Amino acid sequence: MKFATLPDGTRDGRLFIVSRDMTRIEPAKGAHTMQELMERWDEVEIQLEMEYEAVNNGLGGGFSPAAALAPLPRAWQWLDGSAFDSHGALMAKVFGMEDKFKPDFPYMYQGVSDRFYAPTEDVKFPSEDDFIDFEGEFGIITDAVPLGIKAREARQHIRLLVQINDWSLRRIAPLEMKAGFGWVRAKPACSMAPVAVTPDELGDAWRDARIDLDLGVWWNGEKFGAANGYAMSVGFDALVEHAAYSRDLVPGTVIGSGTVSNETYRDVGSSCIAERRGIEMIDKGDATTEFMKFGDRVRMEVFDAAGETVFGAIDQKVIPA
Amino acid sequence: MKFATLPDGTRDGRLFIVSRDMTRIEPAKGAHTMQELMERWDEVEIQLEMEYEAVNNGLGGGFSPAAALAPLPRAWQWLDGSAFDSHGALMAKVFGMEDKFKPDFPYMYQGVSDRFYAPTEDVKFPSEDDFIDFEGEFGIITDAVPLGIKAREARQHIRLLVQINDWSLRRIAPLEMKAGFGWVRAKPACSMAPVAVTPDELGDAWRDARIDLDLGVWWNGEKFGAANGYAMSVGFDALVEHAAYSRDLVPGTVIGSGTVSNETYRDVGSSCIAERRGIEMIDKGDATTEFMKFGDRVRMEVFDAAGETVFGAIDQKVIPA
Repeated sequence: MKFATLPDGTRDGRLFIVSRDMTRIEPAKGAHTMQELMERWDEVEIQLEMEYEAVNNGLGGGFSPAAALAPLPRAWQWLDGSAFDSHGALMAKVFGMEDKFKPDFPYMYQGVSDRFYAPTEDVKFPSEDDFIDFEGEFGIITDAVPLGIKAREARQHIRLLVQINDWSLRRIAPLEMKAGFGWVRAKPACSMAPVAVTPDELGDAWRDARIDLDLGVWWNGEKFGAANGYAMSVGFDALVEHAAYSRDLVPGTVIGSGTVSNETYRDVGSSCIAERRGIEMIDKGDATTEFMKFGDRVRMEVFDAAGETVFGAIDQKVIPA
Repeated sequence: MKFATLPDGTRDGRLFIVSRDMTRIEPAKGAHTMQELMERWDEVEIQLEMEYEAVNNGLGGGFSPAAALAPLPRAWQWLDGSAFDSHGALMAKVFGMEDKFKPDFPYMYQGVSDRFYAPTEDVKFPSEDDFIDFEGEFGIITDAVPLGIKAREARQHIRLLVQINDWSLRRIAPLEMKAGFGWVRAKPACSMAPVAVTPDELGDAWRDARIDLDLGVWWNGEKFGAANGYAMSVGFDALVEHAAYSRDLVPGTVIGSGTVSNETYRDVGSSCIAERRGIEMIDKGDATTEFMKFGDRVRMEVFDAAGETVFGAIDQKVIPA
């Protein structure tokens, strides 16, 4: 199934079911909002599958992904991993933190979840001098997950897959990281692509609790990266296990993969500017690519083997606050 | 004004207005939930002040603080500072991190906000071996705060004061801190004392955006600490400024002071076990006080100059998950 949330004047918006070919939508009857869907998944799943079939058979109105909100416009919890090792190694280089402690557990921080930006919404920042960067990621949305769950059982709680841009301020990030308390100023709200999909929609591209698809990134219209999501050192199931060690996860918890990155970054490119700068430091001794300026745009979109968009596009402009 | 939230079968509970002497309550008419109050403060303040006067004049039913939920049972955002320098220095000692980077900005992490435990609710943990600890704190609840606000203007957005127990797992805390991503497993949900109060209720004890009252802590019935809340190196107004640097704060954002601690800790005691262990390490070369065991209780309560309870008591038992 595929879902989108359209504006209706409320903070949570109105949940719609989207046709497989992303051309038509119909208001979901089984749940009014995405949050409600995550709270009542088991009760409403069969009804929604019937609605999905109907919209696939021609029911519903036209769908304009650019007009959608984030599929989950706000969440009670957003936890972001950093599961791509090639990214971590490059970031340590950029931040001058290569001798930093390497934990034997997955990296994960808790970020602001009171909003996810709509996919085409302008995004405000206080200053270009904070080194504005994008981070292309994949993510999951869970239903209710009990405390202490193991990865194997966690998979059934991964109800939806999403695509995320985790906005980052790179001047502040290493300072907050060294302080040890995680990120507050360096990690403002994230953006989500317009459509959330059930794992079965990906077919073979959803395996080992990872998304085996390339995340395309364009900066001011130029291709910047197309790293593949399968290279996670641990799957989303292990990230759920980690997150639920000492807390149960409320329905609608969003967990991110961290910046998608591959060892072959010189060929496939990067999903954030900081990583390209790390490559430049390795290759040329100096980072020459600058961070984003006000007015810049970033686009992120994922295509399946048939060349069809999977989550719709994030396409946003950064502007001064 | 004073507020409490009582159970009504929903996640957010029902907002009540509490008499100054904490003996009577009446359902708030101006707002149905604490979240709604924070979203509509300016509209409903005058009406609620009239309701408060009525309940002070004898309206309403009896109040049983032990039956209350947290005043805000869940929040869209929980940010916790660490504004007591004597605590920070001792914790660095306990964690063996005295050479750690000292930032020139306030310490703050983002924690889980999808629930605040009720003041007398049992609290579940996976294992005693994680070194279960309490942390007595003061906190504030804000209304909507614009991005980029300065401390001076931030004060008017501090609508309510609360008392918090920030549960912590000390085995995990230094590992997550060294990883640089902040705390996920080491910081499960917090608890709140039953009553939230407007700053004016504290009279002279609310000054310089700090709470000049002692936070009493009892562990299994024995007095453990009574540190004073005025010793914050920065006030709550500066914490709001810090939090709102690159994000606006949604109404109902909760910001904590960090563990209340004084330089005179040998006289006044501590608000968490880890701090007492730090003192033992300094004084005796070895920490002998153990962390909490299942079945242990912690009580936290604050009294004003007249000897009256300010927020009601947190009194909880830790149990296995």
